[in-house]
Amino acid sequence: MNHTAIARSWVEHANGHRDFPLQNLPLGIFSRPGQAPRCGVAIGDAILDLEAVLAAGLFDGAAKAAVEATVGGALNAFFALGRTARVTLRERLLALLGEGSEHQDALKAALYPASECQLHLPARIGDYTDFYVGIEHAKNVGKLFRPDNPLLPNYKYVPIGYHGRASTIRPSGTDVRRPKGQTLPAGQTEPSFGPCARLDYELELGIWIGQGNEMGQSIAVGDAAEHVAGYCLLNDWSARDIQAWEYQPLGPFLSKSFITSVSPWVVTAEALEPFRCAQPARPEGDPQPLSYLLDKRDQAGGAFDIELEVLLLTARMREQNLPAHRLTLSNTRSMYWTVAQMVAHHSVNGCQLQPGDLFGSGTLSGAAAGSFGSLLEITEGGKHPVQLASGEVRKFLEDGDEIILRARCVSDGVASIGFGECRGTIVAAN
Amino acid sequence: MNHTAIARSWVEHANGHRDFPLQNLPLGIFSRPGQAPRCGVAIGDAILDLEAVLAAGLFDGAAKAAVEATVGGALNAFFALGRTARVTLRERLLALLGEGSEHQDALKAALYPASECQLHLPARIGDYTDFYVGIEHAKNVGKLFRPDNPLLPNYKYVPIGYHGRASTIRPSGTDVRRPKGQTLPAGQTEPSFGPCARLDYELELGIWIGQGNEMGQSIAVGDAAEHVAGYCLLNDWSARDIQAWEYQPLGPFLSKSFITSVSPWVVTAEALEPFRCAQPARPEGDPQPLSYLLDKRDQAGGAFDIELEVLLLTARMREQNLPAHRLTLSNTRSMYWTVAQMVAHHSVNGCQLQPGDLFGSGTLSGAAAGSFGSLLEITEGGKHPVQLASGEVRKFLEDGDEIILRARCVSDGVASIGFGECRGTIVAAN
Repeated sequence: MNHTAIARSWVEHANGHRDFPLQNLPLGIFSRPGQAPRCGVAIGDAILDLEAVLAAGLFDGAAKAAVEATVGGALNAFFALGRTARVTLRERLLALLGEGSEHQDALKAALYPASECQLHLPARIGDYTDFYVGIEHAKNVGKLFRPDNPLLPNYKYVPIGYHGRASTIRPSGTDVRRPKGQTLPAGQTEPSFGPCARLDYELELGIWIGQGNEMGQSIAVGDAAEHVAGYCLLNDWSARDIQAWEYQPLGPFLSKSFITSVSPWVVTAEALEPFRCAQPARPEGDPQPLSYLLDKRDQAGGAFDIELEVLLLTARMREQNLPAHRLTLSNTRSMYWTVAQMVAHHSVNGCQLQPGDLFGSGTLSGAAAGSFGSLLEITEGGKHPVQLASGEVRKFLEDGDEIILRARCVSDGVASIGFGECRGTIVAAN
Repeated sequence: MNHTAIARSWVEHANGHRDFPLQNLPLGIFSRPGQAPRCGVAIGDAILDLEAVLAAGLFDGAAKAAVEATVGGALNAFFALGRTARVTLRERLLALLGEGSEHQDALKAALYPASECQLHLPARIGDYTDFYVGIEHAKNVGKLFRPDNPLLPNYKYVPIGYHGRASTIRPSGTDVRRPKGQTLPAGQTEPSFGPCARLDYELELGIWIGQGNEMGQSIAVGDAAEHVAGYCLLNDWSARDIQAWEYQPLGPFLSKSFITSVSPWVVTAEALEPFRCAQPARPEGDPQPLSYLLDKRDQAGGAFDIELEVLLLTARMREQNLPAHRLTLSNTRSMYWTVAQMVAHHSVNGCQLQPGDLFGSGTLSGAAAGSFGSLLEITEGGKHPVQLASGEVRKFLEDGDEIILRARCVSDGVASIGFGECRGTIVAAN
């Protein structure tokens, strides 16, 4: 698992790279102009073409079988192989890309500048589930509706989630078309139809499911980590005005399904291992989780310490060459439930999870100003606009605005890694 | 479209068949022992193997292309071809299977007793959306929570729907494992964990999407009928006790995702054409639909007159050779919104629909006793148990109970057709 900060790659630009040093090795699906999508590994500012490395004969045994499972433009079959296959491939890649590798010449021919490649979704997403485990977000949003009682009675017992739309999940860089829909203007009793006027982002951690379960079976919380292949950033774009009018009684629908953006690189469970931490102690008076959600190992190391950031770049800021404005600086430690608890809960009724399924964590806001993961929270529903260096203000997103999600993992004695970016620019409604 | 009642098939058991006379010709995916799943057409008590007919050289031109698109064990590519391909195939099948067909000998070799075949899901379901357009159901359920104000303010403006779980949709005949989950027992403030004690069925119409749309585009209500390939029966099995505790604020989740059953035959939009009817006039005082949901042709003929039935057969009733007990006799005329309105609404925000997506209508209850589409409504949440001829009573479903959904279309001057059955038997929790 070689995460030590001193391990270096012969790919020089990888050493000290913000996101993709040797210690990360995230997997994704990329293509070069005119070529079919295939599996690659991000290393510094480059992408290593695993099919080319396979063709060069540099994989054998279990690592070869793992790479063969990536062929075809989607990682579902590779995810289905589980942890051992990922670990085997990782160890082989550490050897191939590490300093002193014997195969540098052959590998250089399989290494392309990332800027010349297009990134795709890493897997065919069978089902997408969006959770709501960011307790500060739940409190912030709850306060807007119920100032004295922001959290509903089930929140501290149930890892709340709902089914999302899989067909409109897109990789970073895909434009976000402003949706149209029904809204109930303030003070009116009849709805109007038109473009969303309260378009928002939501900062989330994405979770890629690895091995699944049969329908009717459950995944125990102690086994759940084995069913997660990796992680990404996820922007759960939200039309707040459409959401407010449509969501009773069956939950959000068209207010979310117009697009969901993900960062294209799958940061593996193994790469994130050094950034695990104990689940934060539940505040005094909070109930203990029910037993099917409780596992000592998960409590001791099932949470993550990942710094999350959201930046806004408006069209005018781009014209004026202004730097992006930071809207959010947050952390995955604000998750009230671990990923293992989410997996165990999702399957406890016998629901089948499948390789390539995607979970969103729910919006990961912190408790303090500056750490809120959506404009709904930052502006308190539009009451307190954000001031930008360009002289503009924002209550919600306007056409031309770009939202950039980033994540960074830092821990003593190991190299820092990142997730790459999850970007999206708002374009006008049709 | 030859629906006339006098059109007969040389397949004698098809003539006057309850579900599958010559006028129906539904498509499905079946297999015989040891063979790969393939596309078939139900005719009487038999299944015509379309790949075998193709191999015999009995399709050419557009009909041949249509059948070729069915190869591979799923109808998605065929659905993507749209209405013209379905109509062309239907006309060829009417000629091949109608009285006077020249190819009876060759076709007989491709005709298998349905009892010897296994039926599969007809398509790979990308996304599944469950609507809530049965207004009597919405009123009945609303009354349990809000006696004076059963319908929420958005109901008569918004075709309410939510995303469902695609991975656990199964064909008729698949056992229904009783789910486990969290529930809040009456009078308690802390939840318990265990097997669902309030297991229910929901009678719904299923809608198979044909041609899709690009993300960011919408399907106009006047074009929406062109995007529907066909219909089935759908049982949205529901764990009422889990649902009551989990559903706030994001909607039903594990209370629905353990399994959803569908009848395996796709009754095509063309076969249902004679059973279309005008959308029932909205009651005095109801608002008109917003313009994106309004189309004169849809109002004139976008609804369906399909009789729906639910039967219950308990283990003891089977032992005693008692006939199944009819729980529900209902009709699709109780839909407040048409299928075209559901399609237009779903895509109005730019959400991408894809061939093989599935919609559920929502529970289709009538207004009168005897027509309620779930036990929650029939027993008023368990207050008034159903009495059975076996001496048993039912508030909700017990292990060993089988639920059977049926549908029948009857109209003057055309042959009646049916949907086949959607069956499921409850088995004990793990």
